[in-house]
Amino acid sequence: MKYAGRMEGMQSSEIRELLKLTAQPEIISFAGGLPAPELFPVEEIAKVTTDLLAKEGRQLLQYATTEGRPSLRAKIAKRMADKYHTEVDPCDILITTGSQQMLDFCGKLFINPGDVVLCESPSYLGALNAFKAYEPKFIEVPTDDGGLIPEELDKILSTTPNCKFIYVIPDFQNPTGRTWSMERRKAVMEVVNKHNLPVVEDNPYGELRYEGEILPSLKSLDTKGLVMFLGTFSKIFAPGLRLGWVAAEHSVFEKFVQIKQSADLHTSNFDQGVVDAYMENCDLDQHVKEIVALYKHRRDVILQAMEDNFPEGCTWTRPEGGLFLWLTFPEGVSALKVFNKCIEAKVAGVIGDAFYPNDKTDRSMRINFSNMPDERIIEGIQRMAKAIKEAMA
Amino acid sequence: MKYAGRMEGMQSSEIRELLKLTAQPEIISFAGGLPAPELFPVEEIAKVTTDLLAKEGRQLLQYATTEGRPSLRAKIAKRMADKYHTEVDPCDILITTGSQQMLDFCGKLFINPGDVVLCESPSYLGALNAFKAYEPKFIEVPTDDGGLIPEELDKILSTTPNCKFIYVIPDFQNPTGRTWSMERRKAVMEVVNKHNLPVVEDNPYGELRYEGEILPSLKSLDTKGLVMFLGTFSKIFAPGLRLGWVAAEHSVFEKFVQIKQSADLHTSNFDQGVVDAYMENCDLDQHVKEIVALYKHRRDVILQAMEDNFPEGCTWTRPEGGLFLWLTFPEGVSALKVFNKCIEAKVAGVIGDAFYPNDKTDRSMRINFSNMPDERIIEGIQRMAKAIKEAMA
Repeated sequence: MKYAGRMEGMQSSEIRELLKLTAQPEIISFAGGLPAPELFPVEEIAKVTTDLLAKEGRQLLQYATTEGRPSLRAKIAKRMADKYHTEVDPCDILITTGSQQMLDFCGKLFINPGDVVLCESPSYLGALNAFKAYEPKFIEVPTDDGGLIPEELDKILSTTPNCKFIYVIPDFQNPTGRTWSMERRKAVMEVVNKHNLPVVEDNPYGELRYEGEILPSLKSLDTKGLVMFLGTFSKIFAPGLRLGWVAAEHSVFEKFVQIKQSADLHTSNFDQGVVDAYMENCDLDQHVKEIVALYKHRRDVILQAMEDNFPEGCTWTRPEGGLFLWLTFPEGVSALKVFNKCIEAKVAGVIGDAFYPNDKTDRSMRINFSNMPDERIIEGIQRMAKAIKEAMA
Repeated sequence: MKYAGRMEGMQSSEIRELLKLTAQPEIISFAGGLPAPELFPVEEIAKVTTDLLAKEGRQLLQYATTEGRPSLRAKIAKRMADKYHTEVDPCDILITTGSQQMLDFCGKLFINPGDVVLCESPSYLGALNAFKAYEPKFIEVPTDDGGLIPEELDKILSTTPNCKFIYVIPDFQNPTGRTWSMERRKAVMEVVNKHNLPVVEDNPYGELRYEGEILPSLKSLDTKGLVMFLGTFSKIFAPGLRLGWVAAEHSVFEKFVQIKQSADLHTSNFDQGVVDAYMENCDLDQHVKEIVALYKHRRDVILQAMEDNFPEGCTWTRPEGGLFLWLTFPEGVSALKVFNKCIEAKVAGVIGDAFYPNDKTDRSMRINFSNMPDERIIEGIQRMAKAIKEAMA
């Protein structure tokens, strides 16, 4: 069979093979990004689903509108105002099959082969893969501990044609765990406004803040309708249901609706109803509080374990929220060598190289801390420390 | 914002506007393709969902594998053998977010801009729209009452470069309601084998047969791994859950898995579990029998009403199954004029033009008969008869 040219550009088989290794049994894996299943509100979901089916089962199981369940869109708009200080009209919210689907749609809406997509360096692997299907050129914008560096963005935009959008995760970034400062947010929006650059603001972890004050979303600072805000229920409710959303300027929203119709008609009406009923009848805020308390504790445990075990020269970020931190090995140490030693020692993270679209070799590893009990975190970090020391020897 | 070139090729705004008119309140609409909601097994779904959440809630609500729930893939393989005489390895089955998603994936996997996609003339609007996002040229293969005409296909393939696949619905086609004869199936597979042409066999209605014997799927006649079989739970269970599947040769399956991972990670694990548990604990066969009995009755009611009311010169198909029939007006009568008269008379079908990818003006209308009680079908057909007569006057 003769496939389309775009298939060649999709994820490198090398990274795929490395990721497969992390899924072997007996491995303590910090490679995933899974929520803690012990917190899923299973009983409440059973209760609201039973009630919902009794109340509106026939409508719930039928085809539905592409835009999404109206009462859920309204609740999302309210939540964006309450939690992200971001005022959005419910009519500008499209409910999607997880926020991963919106990454695919952004590629589809904007990218002609050869067009430029900008992203933080490093950036989220799943987004890069989604965009790759549309054959862009990636330009990585340098970052530091404060987030994206606006001057660097301005330089690139001033000299590069066909920049279609920038993809960013300002809060608890994947993979680094970093959060953009208030100053950076304002400065980036100034640059973006100057060049009329569309912005895909991915915010899967925003509500999972363990310290400090919530910062305004780029969307809330947007005066020109340039920002598309991507949200999800995967981290505050449950990822098995595949529910995300985009809030975008209305003409852009309409394009996404058109794409959505061809892509899967609409998001599961059953799943939309279940989340809507849960938000109506249960206490999502309280639930998120419990998630935050547990993940904050696990972050503290992993940071202490790294402090206690990792050799001199290793550095890592101390995220204020989210699911990930970013571990960097001393200069001269090969991350691939560490990765292989880790697999031998039955522990895994995701090798940093995976997060650079332009085949960069890095000295880093992404570490997830949301999904394991304390003793397993500590055991895993001890194994990893041993592997790092072996690779350094 | 500057969108990608592919957005220009997506569904014509003219057809979109016409479709919107059919959704007005007070209209008796034969335009949709909705299952009868009164048959949805609401109580059983509530029961199995409660049990399932109690048994494996934490796993059910978590991220899951891209390929799909293993026990559901096994059940689908068994059902394809039992109902479609089609032997498939469960490892070659990918579960998708409705079968609409697979239409998008076929476009993504195969089509470079300018490549040729073949389809029956006319063909399913939703498929054509999904493919259009990848900028193909469409070549429509002539059809008659027996289905696709193999000699015409052979002629086209012998003279046309870059034919990437053919999209077909051999059973109770959308929009015509026609079913390919056994001879045609064999003859088309011979042509396809001769030219090594991949085949997308869409089979959403196969189990909804009201008379005659089930005919073998193209997939079951496939000796070269060319056929991708698309199935769905939307018509035999419930469309609100968005559950479809593809069965394809393993190397093609693997490509679809890769595409699926970028598109939405995996299909709702919750929805997959619910259908799986329903199939495990309830009687899907009995449920399908009830659907078949009701739709057969409604088909008979609409055929009789058309016989009783439509003016001389109108013709229509008499489908052996599925949800649709194809109404053709007498020569010289404009379908657009009929359509507009219908809207005035508060009744609607889908104008035939919508089902031709290459802007053909037709004298036909697609009529759905699955979704309304008898008296509403009769009232709707009477209104439509009046509208046709006015347009003919």
